[in-house]
Amino acid sequence: MSEPVLEIAEITIREGAEDAFIGGVRAALPVFQAAAGFRSLKLRRSIERPAVFRLMIEWDRLEDHTIGFRQSPGFARWRELVGAFFDGTPVVDHSRTVVET
Amino acid sequence: MSEPVLEIAEITIREGAEDAFIGGVRAALPVFQAAAGFRSLKLRRSIERPAVFRLMIEWDRLEDHTIGFRQSPGFARWRELVGAFFDGTPVVDHSRTVVET
Repeated sequence: MSEPVLEIAEITIREGAEDAFIGGVRAALPVFQAAAGFRSLKLRRSIERPAVFRLMIEWDRLEDHTIGFRQSPGFARWRELVGAFFDGTPVVDHSRTVVET
Repeated sequence: MSEPVLEIAEITIREGAEDAFIGGVRAALPVFQAAAGFRSLKLRRSIERPAVFRLMIEWDRLEDHTIGFRQSPGFARWRELVGAFFDGTPVVDHSRTVVET
């Protein structure tokens, strides 16, 4: 299997909604796990800025996220579960590994 | 062993210096590998913004990076190897996993 593409979505959460957001991400796991090209998901929380989370998802190919997932009912379901907790628009980036230990 | 802290340093590189920067990171691997509390390193390159790299380092504890490494000769050596290629100051964040598949 080729090296996956990593999506990092930096999401700032409204004050007081952090726990509800984390619960929403847990509830959304089956949605991601059912998506074509999905490999793994981690939600990370910043230590310096606890309102800032990073959703880190490995996809087989860039298009599995940008086309396949975003045009699927799963994306709408994801936003239903967590969108109300967002403080602003997530900042999304995709990257590939160039050096690793 | 407890869950590590992930440092993410977002580093923008001057146009044309990307390959030299990648080479500098490779040359710096032994510096990181010798640092107390170091676990692993990945350098990722953005697909949307190829001048943007993310250095992702797992440390045993936050202080292994913020105090131990930054006050060590290794940090000076790291900057010697790659600092000239930076376009601006890296943006550094530390985070912990809260959900994972």
